[in-house]
Amino acid sequence: MSAVIDLAKDLIRRPSVTPKDAGCQHVIAERLAKIGFTNEPMFFVDTLNTWSRKGQDKPNVCFAGHTDVVPVGDEKKWRFEPFAATEHEGYLHGRGAADMKGSLAAMVVATERFVASHPEHKGSISFLITSDEEGPFINGTTRVIDTLEARNEKIDMCIVGEPSSTDKLGDVVKNGRRGSLTAYLTVKGKQGHVAYPHLADNPVHHASGFLQALCQEKWDEGNEFFPATSMQISNINAGTGAGNVIPGELEVQFNFRYSTELTAEQIKSRVVALLGEHKVNYDLDWTHNGQPFITEPGELTTAVQGAIEEQMGYQAELQTSGGTSDGRFIAPTGAKVIELGPRNATIHQVDECVSCDDLEKLALIYEGILRRLLT
Amino acid sequence: MSAVIDLAKDLIRRPSVTPKDAGCQHVIAERLAKIGFTNEPMFFVDTLNTWSRKGQDKPNVCFAGHTDVVPVGDEKKWRFEPFAATEHEGYLHGRGAADMKGSLAAMVVATERFVASHPEHKGSISFLITSDEEGPFINGTTRVIDTLEARNEKIDMCIVGEPSSTDKLGDVVKNGRRGSLTAYLTVKGKQGHVAYPHLADNPVHHASGFLQALCQEKWDEGNEFFPATSMQISNINAGTGAGNVIPGELEVQFNFRYSTELTAEQIKSRVVALLGEHKVNYDLDWTHNGQPFITEPGELTTAVQGAIEEQMGYQAELQTSGGTSDGRFIAPTGAKVIELGPRNATIHQVDECVSCDDLEKLALIYEGILRRLLT
Repeated sequence: MSAVIDLAKDLIRRPSVTPKDAGCQHVIAERLAKIGFTNEPMFFVDTLNTWSRKGQDKPNVCFAGHTDVVPVGDEKKWRFEPFAATEHEGYLHGRGAADMKGSLAAMVVATERFVASHPEHKGSISFLITSDEEGPFINGTTRVIDTLEARNEKIDMCIVGEPSSTDKLGDVVKNGRRGSLTAYLTVKGKQGHVAYPHLADNPVHHASGFLQALCQEKWDEGNEFFPATSMQISNINAGTGAGNVIPGELEVQFNFRYSTELTAEQIKSRVVALLGEHKVNYDLDWTHNGQPFITEPGELTTAVQGAIEEQMGYQAELQTSGGTSDGRFIAPTGAKVIELGPRNATIHQVDECVSCDDLEKLALIYEGILRRLLT
Repeated sequence: MSAVIDLAKDLIRRPSVTPKDAGCQHVIAERLAKIGFTNEPMFFVDTLNTWSRKGQDKPNVCFAGHTDVVPVGDEKKWRFEPFAATEHEGYLHGRGAADMKGSLAAMVVATERFVASHPEHKGSISFLITSDEEGPFINGTTRVIDTLEARNEKIDMCIVGEPSSTDKLGDVVKNGRRGSLTAYLTVKGKQGHVAYPHLADNPVHHASGFLQALCQEKWDEGNEFFPATSMQISNINAGTGAGNVIPGELEVQFNFRYSTELTAEQIKSRVVALLGEHKVNYDLDWTHNGQPFITEPGELTTAVQGAIEEQMGYQAELQTSGGTSDGRFIAPTGAKVIELGPRNATIHQVDECVSCDDLEKLALIYEGILRRLLT
């Protein structure tokens, strides 16, 4: 009998495809209520969130995560049914097993054990859980944070349970994330017949110099915490399909994952400058998906690395690479944020699974973090 | 009563959307049979063609054209019904009026008049008419030419009735056409997540240097008969639509309208060289839509310009600009080819129409050409 695996299975069996919660937060809330937490559900539009807290003092140590999962894709390609929570040869299978219901179960059991062994612990423990991290996320963690900030309720240190590990549990801990900024560029020309180019204006030709400059631009060198800012073109489209028509417009979508060396405004200015240098006729829109954040080495990272070393015998590497997480909504409040979870090789794919042994260790690591921070 | 307008109306009323003929060639063949022509219908796959001839001697002067028309588009946008052949304020309205049923009517009436006034004319007169010039054209003029070449039946001089005029009837005569060559380029990369560019390979980035070089390349300077070779990108596409995915492939389609300064093989080699210089990983296919041809000033152009001057009072300009025509299938046999037809401003559009006065004059011009060449 494993408390962690049993709870993980219960959560996995609930088909909480984003933004559904399928009762997961209620299960967690009931467990926390039994050990002295107050639970505050916050439902926004189509998203269920729960803010749970035990204690009023500082420091407030928060476990953060999500109960929603990405769609299964082609169910016929899965070895085990995606919501059956099948245990097989030491692995727990199912959509959300690694991202991130295994972590949620480990967090809850770790907290139960810690509170049982340290009933007079200092500070507070909290849980911030959402049912929309994978989707548009506008009614999830960001709205909970707005609510807490409005009443001046602060999180001091936050452990986000996203699957950070690569080859071994705890080999990588994220202590920051890059910002994400997306450009939607429309280059304007004039449609016409390929045989009469003087009566038309080919936006693809006009944009070619700008595109090369954009791809060759060195945005920054990164710094001790972040790799160099990266730009990637994700979509480019022009043309009617017909081979004898000069298109009237070219659409280009490109995304920046940027370091703390730059602000979003600086990136926008440089793109606009490149467009000006190459005399492009255009419209340009932006979506700012998130600011970068960094938690410099200190009390929280020491506690996390210490707890990992204790259970696993090796030092976790602090990294800021990869995608984004809800940590980006929590860090701007002043909270110190790190992300620690299981291995992420199978997330968002068919046959997602998580090592049962890893989940047991993860619960012990989370408990170790609480012990280091709150006793 | 106008023989030219009446025949043009008969042809326009027949809804011969490519590759249909709707009985047009039969109408023409019957008229020609009455004045001593033999008619040889040639049906290939889905296309009707007719080869008609009077006389066996050289020179063989051929009128060439097509009975098929492009689709009407949105019929509700037409002022007059597209197949009603409405005469209004000096203009004959309908799909095909200018491209090119008006010309066909003018050619037939011109020939009737010429044969009536010069029954002992030297040489031969022929008609090469197809019902697929606007569409894929593979079963049209090109197949008739194959048949004639196989039996060594030669055309010496050819007047194609495509609408060559711009502002005034006969202001422009085409004495050649550029070649047309289309490239289908697939740049190969590796799909991945925007946040993990080192695990992917963005084909758009890799192609950006090549694209700029392609757009800036000076292919040739043209010559006394042709404008400089022109390249135009018609379609460019990459991306899944998702903003966080690096695409795995980029597809680019581009077309050359090329002069006699270059061959298709030379153009292909230069494109391949550019791809090599920029180290692009790619697949490349080509469609060769047609070779260039030129009819240098000589007997035919003198006869055409003379006939136009006689009727209109001005000198026609010889040009090779614009799109392609079936002349490209006829010229390689050694025939001298020119194109002369009505004003082309409304072709392929809604409210296509042709000036009735222009058609009357056009018939007189065609007759004048026959007189200069065959008496």
